Amino acid sequence: MNASEGIVTEAHRAINDLGACGVQVFTNVNGQPLTAPEFRPLFGAMAEHDLPIWVHPARGASFTDYLTETSSKYEIWWTFGWPYETSAAMARIVFEGLLNDYPSLKIITHHMGGMVPYFEGRVGPGWDQLGSRTSDENLGAVLERLKTRPIDLFRMFYADTAVFGSRAATICGISFFGADHVVFASDSPFDPEKGPMYIRETIKIIDELELSETDRDKIYRANAVRLLKLKDR
Amino acid sequence: MNASEGIVTEAHRAINDLGACGVQVFTNVNGQPLTAPEFRPLFGAMAEHDLPIWVHPARGASFTDYLTETSSKYEIWWTFGWPYETSAAMARIVFEGLLNDYPSLKIITHHMGGMVPYFEGRVGPGWDQLGSRTSDENLGAVLERLKTRPIDLFRMFYADTAVFGSRAATICGISFFGADHVVFASDSPFDPEKGPMYIRETIKIIDELELSETDRDKIYRANAVRLLKLKDR
Repeated sequence: MNASEGIVTEAHRAINDLGACGVQVFTNVNGQPLTAPEFRPLFGAMAEHDLPIWVHPARGASFTDYLTETSSKYEIWWTFGWPYETSAAMARIVFEGLLNDYPSLKIITHHMGGMVPYFEGRVGPGWDQLGSRTSDENLGAVLERLKTRPIDLFRMFYADTAVFGSRAATICGISFFGADHVVFASDSPFDPEKGPMYIRETIKIIDELELSETDRDKIYRANAVRLLKLKDR
Repeated sequence: MNASEGIVTEAHRAINDLGACGVQVFTNVNGQPLTAPEFRPLFGAMAEHDLPIWVHPARGASFTDYLTETSSKYEIWWTFGWPYETSAAMARIVFEGLLNDYPSLKIITHHMGGMVPYFEGRVGPGWDQLGSRTSDENLGAVLERLKTRPIDLFRMFYADTAVFGSRAATICGISFFGADHVVFASDSPFDPEKGPMYIRETIKIIDELELSETDRDKIYRANAVRLLKLKDR
């Protein structure tokens, strides 16, 4: 990504020559948003391939939580900062029109869509009022360009189940994105047992959810088969 | 708060002379965390009064989302930044031992506890591993001082129901804090109808939740009566 003139060529090579079934990007590129002009061709290329882009958060302690301090303490930058990063990246993609320009884009967000499902009230009726808290530019024009409610564009993202064993969050996330837009992930091996725990707990939760067997299969398997164009065995 | 030598005197006056049933603070004081030494006496005073502290988020567009930019765009600082602020303030209060020093503290967090309930997996098993992502200081010592899992301290906070009409978030938040630690709030009048919508939608959700009548009454009324030491009519 930091050699932007080669992004599209390399994505084509990875997919066409090496068999990649998607690409992963971080939520920022050396501090720049993914929506910067030099990165937009990647979104066009992936829409053309009809293969997914995984978005993984990336920030460190240098994002301070208080303006009088120079770094984030107690790994807050990780616990809350990473889902914030994901959410900010999703917002930029929405408000800068990438999902309008490429409606077939399939973007898979980590950690069950960051903050979006839990704050669907802020994303929904909150952002329907975009501009009401800003006086130095006309954000109402941004809303008009989208031609739909922002929340409807946020529902176009995909999300994975890596919420580290939280049943309530899994239910909340599936409720927001729908079973067609959620894929299994565990974040193994970053659990206290260094591997098995998050896999085991995530499976336990999904097995016990009140879902139809069809929806459960979508989350475990069928959505991935469809998105990644896998051979269904 | 920005005349810290008067904080405790003013809290006493507001409560003893004027009948205040608690105090509200913002998540930062001119950019400083609430846990700075000059603000800690307020927490001691409120623990002594056994009355709540409301914590309201406060940040503006000056908190940038990307290190190459100077401000947050599209009001991301509000939609996601405010719950992030609340979450960071809660983390500082936990990790700097305020709930250990004053276990009777009653802190009511806005917007259903910020990001904490949805990310209980990160707050739980994630933060049980505090220090594993930091090499330049010994954060393991912080965990030892707490004498309990961080997530158990996060459950000591109270939260309000101001999630702008999200049923799934309401369920997720009550699941995390428990019905004894959730109080009714709507965020009126900051909805698209300028008042009635968030009140109406929040009541509709709570009325329809699968809760015992006792728990529903706690959220609507009894918790507030207890916390604020109101006369129960």
